[in-house]
Amino acid sequence: MRSFERKNIKSMVGYTPGEQPEVESVIKLNTNENPYPPPQSVADVLSQIDVASLRRYPSPSARQFRKVAAKLHHVKPENIIATNGGDELLRLLLTTFVEVGSPIGVADPSYSLYPVLAAIHDSPVRRVSLTSDWELPDDFAEQMNAFGVKLSFVVNPHAPSGKLVPVTRLTEIAQKLDGILVIDEAYVDFIDPDQDYNSIKLINQFDNIVILRTLSKGYSLAGLRFGYGIGPARLIEPMQNKTKDSYNMDLISQKLGVAALQDQAAAKRTWQAVCDERSRMVLEFDQLGLTSLPSQANFLLVEIPSECAGGAEALYQTFKNEGVLVRFFNEERLKNKLRITVGTPQENSALLQILKTAINK
Amino acid sequence: MRSFERKNIKSMVGYTPGEQPEVESVIKLNTNENPYPPPQSVADVLSQIDVASLRRYPSPSARQFRKVAAKLHHVKPENIIATNGGDELLRLLLTTFVEVGSPIGVADPSYSLYPVLAAIHDSPVRRVSLTSDWELPDDFAEQMNAFGVKLSFVVNPHAPSGKLVPVTRLTEIAQKLDGILVIDEAYVDFIDPDQDYNSIKLINQFDNIVILRTLSKGYSLAGLRFGYGIGPARLIEPMQNKTKDSYNMDLISQKLGVAALQDQAAAKRTWQAVCDERSRMVLEFDQLGLTSLPSQANFLLVEIPSECAGGAEALYQTFKNEGVLVRFFNEERLKNKLRITVGTPQENSALLQILKTAINK
Repeated sequence: MRSFERKNIKSMVGYTPGEQPEVESVIKLNTNENPYPPPQSVADVLSQIDVASLRRYPSPSARQFRKVAAKLHHVKPENIIATNGGDELLRLLLTTFVEVGSPIGVADPSYSLYPVLAAIHDSPVRRVSLTSDWELPDDFAEQMNAFGVKLSFVVNPHAPSGKLVPVTRLTEIAQKLDGILVIDEAYVDFIDPDQDYNSIKLINQFDNIVILRTLSKGYSLAGLRFGYGIGPARLIEPMQNKTKDSYNMDLISQKLGVAALQDQAAAKRTWQAVCDERSRMVLEFDQLGLTSLPSQANFLLVEIPSECAGGAEALYQTFKNEGVLVRFFNEERLKNKLRITVGTPQENSALLQILKTAINK
Repeated sequence: MRSFERKNIKSMVGYTPGEQPEVESVIKLNTNENPYPPPQSVADVLSQIDVASLRRYPSPSARQFRKVAAKLHHVKPENIIATNGGDELLRLLLTTFVEVGSPIGVADPSYSLYPVLAAIHDSPVRRVSLTSDWELPDDFAEQMNAFGVKLSFVVNPHAPSGKLVPVTRLTEIAQKLDGILVIDEAYVDFIDPDQDYNSIKLINQFDNIVILRTLSKGYSLAGLRFGYGIGPARLIEPMQNKTKDSYNMDLISQKLGVAALQDQAAAKRTWQAVCDERSRMVLEFDQLGLTSLPSQANFLLVEIPSECAGGAEALYQTFKNEGVLVRFFNEERLKNKLRITVGTPQENSALLQILKTAINK
C-alpha cells in the first residue's frame, strides 16, 4: 500500500490536547479555562447575530477587531493580527519566519505544542533548560544565538510553573537575540495588577518581538478559537497578507471577539476572582503540607511527594475517579507534580475535599 | 532595518480575495455565495447556543460533525476531516503530502489560491493547460507524472468555466496518477441532478483521492468558514491527528455545520432555485448576443466582446458603478470574460437591466 505522507510527517507524533470530556458535570481543572462564563455583553451580541449575515464571506482582515484591539493596547491596527486561536499565530510564526530545517528555540519545560509545530515544519527544537527556580538562565539569548535560532518562544507567565519574567528581563533578551522573541502571554490576564506588568511597549522599541494573546483564558472563550498577535508592523504584515488562510476568522468569532475585548470590566472581575482563589489555594495546599510554586497564571503547579496519596500520577487518577480533571505531565521535573487550574470557589473546595480524603488514607 | 521573513515569503505575493464590501446594499455576484440565507433550522441552533458553553475548549476532532457528514455521504467518520474553510484543507494537503520544494500540479486556469499556497510552501507549480473547450487534456495524468507532481488539483465543476468533468474521467486520472488527486468540489451542490454526479465512491476504490467540500456555497455559510475533506482514512488520518491546528473548529461552527448538513431539504431548495436561474440567465445572455459556457456551478463565465460595452473590464466597472459586483480576471483567456455569480431572480434581473443599458449605449 502506497504512503503519501512527507517523511517528517510520517515520523512525527501529533499534539495530545488535554482531555475534553463531553459531560458537563466533570469539574474541569486540567486545561486552564476561565471558570466563569463570558459576560452578558457577549451573550447579547451572540443573540443578535442574524443567520442571514453568514451567507457572505467575513472580513478577510478582521478589520473591526484589529481596530478595537489596537485601541485597547495603545498600538495601531497594523500591529495586530487576529488568529484562529493562539495556535494559528504560533504556526504562522514558523511558516513566515523560519526556513524549513532551521531550528526554533524553547525554554524547557514549556508548552508541548511548540515541538509539534517544529516537527510539522521539519525543524529541530533547541531547548534551553530553566534554572531550578524555573527562571530563564542568564545566558538564554546567547545560547539561542549560538544555536542559530531565528524564533525563540518564552511563555510568560510560564506554563506549567506560573512564574513571571519581568519586562526588564525580556528587554535584555530582545536586545541580545539575533532572531525573533515570541512572548506567549496566554495567561497574562491573571497577573497580579500590583506587578504592573506590560510588555506591549516593547513592540515599539524592538523589531524582533511578537506577543501572543488569547481570548481562551482571560475572556472565557476557549470554545471560540480566538487569539491575536501584537508586534511591529513589519512582522505582522507578512502573516496578515501572505501566510494566514485568506478568511481565517469567521464572522461570529469576529463579532464576539470585539464584544469580549470591549467589556474589560466584566473580564477583570473574573481575573480578580481567579487571583483571590489562587491565593486561597496556595494557603490551603500549604496547610496540607503541599508546596506550590508562586504563580501569576490561573493554575498552580503543586508538588506531590510520592508518600502523599501515592504520588502525582496516582493522585491524578484519584481526582479523575471522583470527577475532577487535573493535568499530569509524565516528563522530567514534572512527574512528581500536578498542574491544577484555579476554578470557582466551589470547584476548588471540592478538589480540596478529595485531596484531604486521599491524604488521610 | 533587519528583515526576518523567509526568502520565499519575502518574494511572494499574497492572495487577493474578491471584494467584500461591508455595505449590505451592494448586489454581490463576485464571489459565488449562495443568494439565499441559511435555513430556519440553522438559525434555531444558533439561537440556542448558550454563551457559557464557549468557556470550554471545543471537541478537537469535530466528532459530531464527522459522524453526520459520514452518514450523509455513506462513508465512515475516519474518512472525514472538518476544516476552517476549504482553504485550510488545501493548506493541510500541501503540509502533509508535499515535500518542501517538490511541485504541485494544477489545471490552468484555475483557483488562484493554489499558486499562493505553493509559494508559502516554497514549492513550484506545474500547470497543465485546459483544452480550448475548457477540458482536461487526455494526457493530464501523464503530464503530472512527468513533472513529478505528488498533489494535483482539479476543481470540479471547474472554476471559472463551470465545466464538469465526469466521474469516469476522474477514475482514469486517479488510476494513472503517481500522486494524490484533489477534487475540489466547492461547487458540487449546483450540478444538475440529471447529471447523476457522485465521485465519493472513488475514495473506496483508490488510495490517492481527496475530495474537498464546503458549506460556503451550497449551504449559504461562507461567513462561518466551514469546509471538509473526504478521503481514504490513510490520507485523512495524518491531517486530522498531526498537521491541523489542535482545535481548528470552534464550538459554534461545529454546531451550525451539523445543523446545516442535517437540513438537506432546505439546502436543496436553494440549489434548485440557483439551477433554474442559471438556465434563465444563459437564455437572457444569449438573447443579448452574449455567449456563456455551459455551467454546472453557481456562476456563468460570459464572454464580453470588446465592442460590447467597452469589453469585459469596462463592463465590470459599469456594473460596479451601479452597485453590482461581478468578477473580472486580468489574465490570459479570461480578460475578455466576466464571471457572474447566479443571484436571486431580482438580483439577476437588476444585472440584466444594467447590461441592456450598457449595450445600447
